[in-house]
Amino acid sequence: MSKSLCTFFMSITKNLLADFLETRSHSEEICAPLQTEDYVVQPIVDVSPPKWHLGHTTWFFEEFILAKFNDNYKRFHSEYDFVFNSYYESFGERVVRTDRGNLSRPTVEEVYEYRDYVTGHLQSFMEETDNPEVYDLIEIGIHHEKQHQELLLTDIKYILGNNPLLPKYNDTFNENPVTYGKTKYLKIEEGIYDIGYSGEGFCYDNEQNNHKVFLHSFHIADSLVTNREYLEFINAGGYNKPLLWHAEAWDWIGQNNIALPLYWFKVDSEYKQYTMQGLKELVLDAPLSHISYYEAFAFAQWKGQRLPTEFEWESAQHLFEWGSRWEWTESAYLPYPGYSKAPGALGEYNGKFMVNQKVLRGGSVATSKHHTRSTYRNFFHPTLRWQFNGFRLVKDK
Amino acid sequence: MSKSLCTFFMSITKNLLADFLETRSHSEEICAPLQTEDYVVQPIVDVSPPKWHLGHTTWFFEEFILAKFNDNYKRFHSEYDFVFNSYYESFGERVVRTDRGNLSRPTVEEVYEYRDYVTGHLQSFMEETDNPEVYDLIEIGIHHEKQHQELLLTDIKYILGNNPLLPKYNDTFNENPVTYGKTKYLKIEEGIYDIGYSGEGFCYDNEQNNHKVFLHSFHIADSLVTNREYLEFINAGGYNKPLLWHAEAWDWIGQNNIALPLYWFKVDSEYKQYTMQGLKELVLDAPLSHISYYEAFAFAQWKGQRLPTEFEWESAQHLFEWGSRWEWTESAYLPYPGYSKAPGALGEYNGKFMVNQKVLRGGSVATSKHHTRSTYRNFFHPTLRWQFNGFRLVKDK
Amino acid sequence: MSKSLCTFFMSITKNLLADFLETRSHSEEICAPLQTEDYVVQPIVDVSPPKWHLGHTTWFFEEFILAKFNDNYKRFHSEYDFVFNSYYESFGERVVRTDRGNLSRPTVEEVYEYRDYVTGHLQSFMEETDNPEVYDLIEIGIHHEKQHQELLLTDIKYILGNNPLLPKYNDTFNENPVTYGKTKYLKIEEGIYDIGYSGEGFCYDNEQNNHKVFLHSFHIADSLVTNREYLEFINAGGYNKPLLWHAEAWDWIGQNNIALPLYWFKVDSEYKQYTMQGLKELVLDAPLSHISYYEAFAFAQWKGQRLPTEFEWESAQHLFEWGSRWEWTESAYLPYPGYSKAPGALGEYNGKFMVNQKVLRGGSVATSKHHTRSTYRNFFHPTLRWQFNGFRLVKDK
Amino acid sequence: MSKSLCTFFMSITKNLLADFLETRSHSEEICAPLQTEDYVVQPIVDVSPPKWHLGHTTWFFEEFILAKFNDNYKRFHSEYDFVFNSYYESFGERVVRTDRGNLSRPTVEEVYEYRDYVTGHLQSFMEETDNPEVYDLIEIGIHHEKQHQELLLTDIKYILGNNPLLPKYNDTFNENPVTYGKTKYLKIEEGIYDIGYSGEGFCYDNEQNNHKVFLHSFHIADSLVTNREYLEFINAGGYNKPLLWHAEAWDWIGQNNIALPLYWFKVDSEYKQYTMQGLKELVLDAPLSHISYYEAFAFAQWKGQRLPTEFEWESAQHLFEWGSRWEWTESAYLPYPGYSKAPGALGEYNGKFMVNQKVLRGGSVATSKHHTRSTYRNFFHPTLRWQFNGFRLVKDK
Repeated sequence: MSKSLCTFFMSITKNLLADFLETRSHSEEICAPLQTEDYVVQPIVDVSPPKWHLGHTTWFFEEFILAKFNDNYKRFHSEYDFVFNSYYESFGERVVRTDRGNLSRPTVEEVYEYRDYVTGHLQSFMEETDNPEVYDLIEIGIHHEKQHQELLLTDIKYILGNNPLLPKYNDTFNENPVTYGKTKYLKIEEGIYDIGYSGEGFCYDNEQNNHKVFLHSFHIADSLVTNREYLEFINAGGYNKPLLWHAEAWDWIGQNNIALPLYWFKVDSEYKQYTMQGLKELVLDAPLSHISYYEAFAFAQWKGQRLPTEFEWESAQHLFEWGSRWEWTESAYLPYPGYSKAPGALGEYNGKFMVNQKVLRGGSVATSKHHTRSTYRNFFHPTLRWQFNGFRLVKDK
Repeated sequence: MSKSLCTFFMSITKNLLADFLETRSHSEEICAPLQTEDYVVQPIVDVSPPKWHLGHTTWFFEEFILAKFNDNYKRFHSEYDFVFNSYYESFGERVVRTDRGNLSRPTVEEVYEYRDYVTGHLQSFMEETDNPEVYDLIEIGIHHEKQHQELLLTDIKYILGNNPLLPKYNDTFNENPVTYGKTKYLKIEEGIYDIGYSGEGFCYDNEQNNHKVFLHSFHIADSLVTNREYLEFINAGGYNKPLLWHAEAWDWIGQNNIALPLYWFKVDSEYKQYTMQGLKELVLDAPLSHISYYEAFAFAQWKGQRLPTEFEWESAQHLFEWGSRWEWTESAYLPYPGYSKAPGALGEYNGKFMVNQKVLRGGSVATSKHHTRSTYRNFFHPTLRWQFNGFRLVKDK
Repeated sequence: MSKSLCTFFMSITKNLLADFLETRSHSEEICAPLQTEDYVVQPIVDVSPPKWHLGHTTWFFEEFILAKFNDNYKRFHSEYDFVFNSYYESFGERVVRTDRGNLSRPTVEEVYEYRDYVTGHLQSFMEETDNPEVYDLIEIGIHHEKQHQELLLTDIKYILGNNPLLPKYNDTFNENPVTYGKTKYLKIEEGIYDIGYSGEGFCYDNEQNNHKVFLHSFHIADSLVTNREYLEFINAGGYNKPLLWHAEAWDWIGQNNIALPLYWFKVDSEYKQYTMQGLKELVLDAPLSHISYYEAFAFAQWKGQRLPTEFEWESAQHLFEWGSRWEWTESAYLPYPGYSKAPGALGEYNGKFMVNQKVLRGGSVATSKHHTRSTYRNFFHPTLRWQFNGFRLVKDK
Repeated sequence: MSKSLCTFFMSITKNLLADFLETRSHSEEICAPLQTEDYVVQPIVDVSPPKWHLGHTTWFFEEFILAKFNDNYKRFHSEYDFVFNSYYESFGERVVRTDRGNLSRPTVEEVYEYRDYVTGHLQSFMEETDNPEVYDLIEIGIHHEKQHQELLLTDIKYILGNNPLLPKYNDTFNENPVTYGKTKYLKIEEGIYDIGYSGEGFCYDNEQNNHKVFLHSFHIADSLVTNREYLEFINAGGYNKPLLWHAEAWDWIGQNNIALPLYWFKVDSEYKQYTMQGLKELVLDAPLSHISYYEAFAFAQWKGQRLPTEFEWESAQHLFEWGSRWEWTESAYLPYPGYSKAPGALGEYNGKFMVNQKVLRGGSVATSKHHTRSTYRNFFHPTLRWQFNGFRLVKDK
C-alpha cells in the first residue's frame, strides 16, 4: 500500500470486490421505487437529482481510477466528466450545482448504461491489477457511494414530500422507530479522553489525528428528544421568543416563516408528518427529526440545558443507543490537531468545508450499513433540515 | 351565441370538432421526439416544462368548460387544478411559476392519460350540447392550445440548447429559411389608417376595437435584418458603445454578459448556432433570430434607422412577406381605444399584462398554422430572447 | 446660433443672465430650511442627497460650458467630475447612483464654495463671449437645474418623511390646495390633433417633432381624483382585488406590502399624511398624491373608467386647470415621429430612457416657475410614488 | 453587589466616576477631527455612522440605568429609544441596522446635547445612590462604550477610506508600528492548561467559566505576518489557487473580486495603502492588517502551517508581544463549559452571536486603553476586513 495513502486510510476490507458490487447495486435498489421523472428534478439547491447521484458516484470511479490507472480504458462519454463532477475545483469546469435540475440529458437509461459500463470495467480491472493505490481508491469510492446513498434517500424524500400530490416512496421504509421509557441522564466524569479514529479499518481524514481532550464532567441524556417534547416547545410559543434564539436564527425563522419542523403539517388543528410511507399521523414517541441546529439550540435553551459537544458525545456514546438520527452537536466543524489534507484532488474531500458548519454525530435511518462509526463526523450548515437529524440534551449538573 | 361573448369573438369556425381534435393531437406530435426527462425540466423561469404545457392546455378545457357546463363530469384528479392553473388569480392558489420544474409528479404518462380523458369527455359533450357559449369557449381553448404549441417548440429548444450535450430536436425542423436579394424600402404615404380586427372570425380582445390612427409617411424594409448584417454590428463593436443603447439595456447587457444573440457560439473564431437540428454553421443569409428588443433597437440606432411602430407594421404588412420571425416593434403593449376586458376569469387573458412590454407582430417558424393574423399582437418584456424573434427597419425619409 | 442645436432648442430667453442667477440662488433657497445632515443621506436609490443635487447642477455648467469653451478656466477640484457626474456614460466613470449617500465629502460648505466659484466664472464668461452655442447650453443648464429643484423638494420630503422623528420642512409650503365642486366630464370630439412643441421658446428634444394624431372622441374629468375618492377605493377593498390590477402590480403590492399611498399613516383608525409642514390630518378634498401608476390604473378600473393617453391630455388641457400634480397617463414613454437625439453627451438626456416608463403630464406644487408646458413630458417607472403625482379620469362615452 | 451579577462581573474598579467621565469624553475626542457630514453616513452594513455610536452608547446608560433605577429621571427624547437601540430584541422595535445611514436627524448637535444630558444625570445619580447593581451596570456601560470607541475608529477609517477624495483622519494616528527581526517559533509543551478569566476585575460572560483544556505540543510564531510576507503570497498567485481556500472562501473572493487586502491600491505597479494619515506607501515591515479569516487561512495553507486555536494563543501569549492587531484564530466562537447568559436584556450581549463566527484574540491600534485582556474574546464573521486584524502562524513540529 502506498505510504502517502497509508496515513489516510488504515487498511482495506477483505472482500473488496463483493463490497464494491453490493454497493453499486444497492444504489440502484434505493431508486427502484422511482418514476423516471423523479430522477430529474432539483427542488432546492441542497437536493440533487437522483440521476445525478447515480452518475456522480460512477464518475468518481471512472475519473479517479479507470482514467488514471488503466491505460486501455476508453471513457463512456467525453462530456460526462463535465456533467458529473461535483465540486472538485482541481478538475476544472463543471455544471454549477444550482443547474443540476435543469439537465434532462443524459437520460436515466443512459445513466444506468454508464453505471454498467464503469462497474464492468472496474470489475475487470480489479482482476488484472495489484496496485495497492487502486484498492485504496476503490475503498474510498465505496464509502463515497455509501454517503451518496444516504443523500439519495433524503433527496428523494424531499422531492416527493414537496410535491403537491405527496406521493409515498414505499410502504416498508420505517423512519420513525418508537422509543419508550423515561429519559435518564448519564454522568460522565471529568478527565482526559481519547478522540478520533485509532482503529485498523477505513476512516476519513477528518477523523484524525487521534488526540486527547480534557472534559469537565457532564450529564448526557440516554435518549433523543421526541416529537412529543418538541410539541410542548411549540405550544409554549418557543418560535416566538427571541431570547431563546441566536441572532442569525431569529432572522432566519422570520424570513422563512419557520414555525414547525420540516414535513410537519397542521391539518385542522392536528399535526401530520410526511414520511417515506406518505402523509401520516405524527408519532409522538418517535425521535424528532428534520430540525435545524438553530431549532435544536432554542429547544435546549428553553429547557435550561444544552447540546453536547462532539467530544462529549464521542466519549459517552458507548453508554446509549444511537443510529436513528444524525445528532446535532454544539461543536463547529474544525480540523483535529495534526490534521492534514490528502494530497491532490482527494484533499478537497473534507478540509475545504471546515468553516461555518456544525458537526453531527451518529447516523440515521437513511445511513448505509457499516457506513458510520462512533468517530464519524458529519457536518452541515446550521439551517439544514432535510436530513434525518435530531438531538439529545446535556446538563452540566 | 351569448351576447357578452359576441363582442369578444366574432364567430365560430365550421368544423370545430375536427379542429379541436387536430389541435389536441398536434401538441402531442410536437412532443414526439422528446425523451421522458425532457418533459420535466424548467431551466429558466420563462420556460415551462413540456409536461406542464400538455397538462395546462388540458386543464383549460376541463376547468372552463367541462367542470362548468357538464353536470355529470367528474374531474380526472382533484389536485390537478392546483398543479396546472397558470396565472388565473380568480381561481385561487396555484403552483408558483418558478416551481413548475420541481414537480416530478404527475408523470408524463399520467399527463397523457389526463389528456385522453378530457379530450374524450369534451368530444362526447360536444355531441350532446348546443349551448353556444360552450362552442365559443372551445374555440378559445383551441387558440389557447395553439399559443402553447408555439411555446412548446421554443421551450423545447431552450431545454435542449442549454444542455451541455446539445442534443438535437429532429432533422427536419428548418428554422432558418434563407432570404436572398437586396432589401428594398417601401414608402407608405401619410394618412389615416384602420387598425385592429374587423373581420368575422376569431380574434383576441386586445385586437379590438378596430380604430383609426394617423400615420406620417415612412419607408419600411421589405425584408428582415439578417445574421450577416448583425455580424457587421458585432464586428463594429456595437455591444461596446453605450450611446447606442437604452440605459436599462446597457445595464442588462453588462450584468448578463450579453455579447451575442442567444444560441450563437464562437468556436475558434467561427460562429455557430444551436438550431432545432443541432449545432450548425451560422447561416449568414437567414433572418436574425433570438435577440432582445434592446439589441434590435441598438442595431437600428447604429444604422441611423429605427423599428416600425405596430401601426406602421400593420398598415404596410400586405406589401411584404412575413411569418418566419416574430418582429419587434417600437410600440408598447397598450389597450386600443374602447378596449374592455372580457368578464370573469377570461378577462385575465390579456389586459393584465398591458404594462412594461413591447409588441411583436407577425409570427414565426414555431407558430401553429392559422394561428396568426395581420392584426395579432404578441408581447414580451424587452429582454426576451428565447422566441424566434427578429425585426425589420424603418426610415423616415 | 449653431444649426445643430437649433433643431433642438428654438430660442433663448431674453434675460439669460438674470434667469441664470435667479435659478442658481433659488436652488439654495430651497435648501435653506435644512440642517447640514439632511444634505447627506440617500434613503432609497431614487432619492439623491440634496448636496449631490447642488453639486451636480454645478458640474453640468462646469463640464459642458466652462471646461469646454473657456480656455482659461481652471476646474475647482480635479475629482468633482467623478463625484458629480450623474449618468453620462460618454464622460467615463462616475460614482454609482446607489453610493451617493455614502459620501460625506465634499462637505456641504465645500459644495457651496464650488457653486459660488462656478456661478462667478460663468457670469464673467457670459460677459466676454458671444458664442451662441454657449448661450444655448446655458439655457439647457438652467432648465436642467430647474428640474433638479423639483427633485430637491421631493427628495427632501422623502428624507424627512421617512425619518422616525418626522421633522417638518417649513410652515409655509402648502402641498394640498383644496378643490371644491363636483367633477365634470368634458367631451372632446373625434378628429386629427396637433401634438408636441411648435413654439419659439425652449423645449426638450422629446417634445418634438410636432406631429398629428387621430383621436376618437372621449370625455375627460375637469378635476383630479381626490383623497376622499381614493379613500372609498381603499374602504371598498381595492387593494385586495386582483382583477383590478396588472399582473406585475399585484406582485409589487404584495411584495412591498402596499396598502396606502406613500406618506399616509393610519393612526387609531384615522388617516394622517406626512406633508412638508409635518404630520397632518388628511385633507379629504385635496387632490390625491404619491400614488404609483399601478394604483391609478386600479382605481380607474374600479370606477369603470380609464386614464387619458398623453395625446388626449394634451389636446384637452386648455379646458381644465392643472399644475398641482403630475398626472399619470396611460401612454408609454416613446419617441415622437421624426425624433432624433441631440449629438454627443446631451443626446443622453432623454432618449436613452424611452423604454419601460410611463408619461406624466402637467406639473406639480414642486415644479419650478416657468418650468412646465402643456407639451412637457415627464416620465417615471410605474412604481414611482415619491413625486407629487396624481391623475384624472377619462370615459369613452 | 447583587449575587446574580457577581457571577458575571467580578468586581468594580476603584475610580468609577473618573473612569466614566474619561470614557465619555474620549469618545468625543475620537470624533474631533470629523466634519459634521462624516458623522452621518453608513457605506456598508457593518459600519455604523459615528453619530449613531455616540447616541447608542448614551442610550445604553439611559435605558439600562437611568430609566430603570432613577425614578425622577425624564428621558431626553421619547423617540431616541427607537433610534439608538442596536439589537436588543427584548426592548422592542428599533431602526433596522441597514437604515442607520438614512437618518439625518437627530442632528450631530442634538446627539451631543443628548450625551451631555445623560452624562450629567448619571454623574448626579452616582452621587446619590449606593445600589451596587447600578455600579455594576455603569462598569458594563463603560466597557460597552470602549468597545464602540474601537468601532468608531475603524468605521471612520472605512468612511474616509472609501470616499473618492481619500481624506485623512489626522496626522498623528500611527497604525503601522514596524517590527524588525526574524520570526522565531516558540515551543509550547503538551499538557493541561487553564483557559478563561479567573481574576478579580471586570470580564465579559463569554470569558467564563475558567476551565481546563488539553493541548498537544505546538510551535507559535513570536511575531505577526507582515505586509512583506503577504506580498510574496500575492506574487506567488495565492489568490488564484483554489486548493488553498475553503470552498466558501473561493466563492467569496470570486464574487467580490478580492485580490488584495482592504485599503491596498496598486498604482502603476506599486502598492499603496490608505491609512488614518491618508494614502501612503505600503510599509513592508509593518504587520499585515485588514484581511479576512479566509485570507489568513489560505496564507497559512500556502506556508504549510496553520492558525493557532484560541486556547493555544491564550496559553502562549505571555511569551510574545501583542496588541497592534486583532489576531484571527482557527477557533469558532462557542460557549465555554458552564457558560450561562446574564438574565434579561444584558443576556443578549454575547451568547446570541455564538454561531458562524471566528474568535480573534489580542487587541489593536484602535483598542481603547485597558480594554483588552489575554482572555478577551473578540469575534467576527470570516469575511470581515474593516477591523485592524492580522494573524500569526503555528507549526505542529
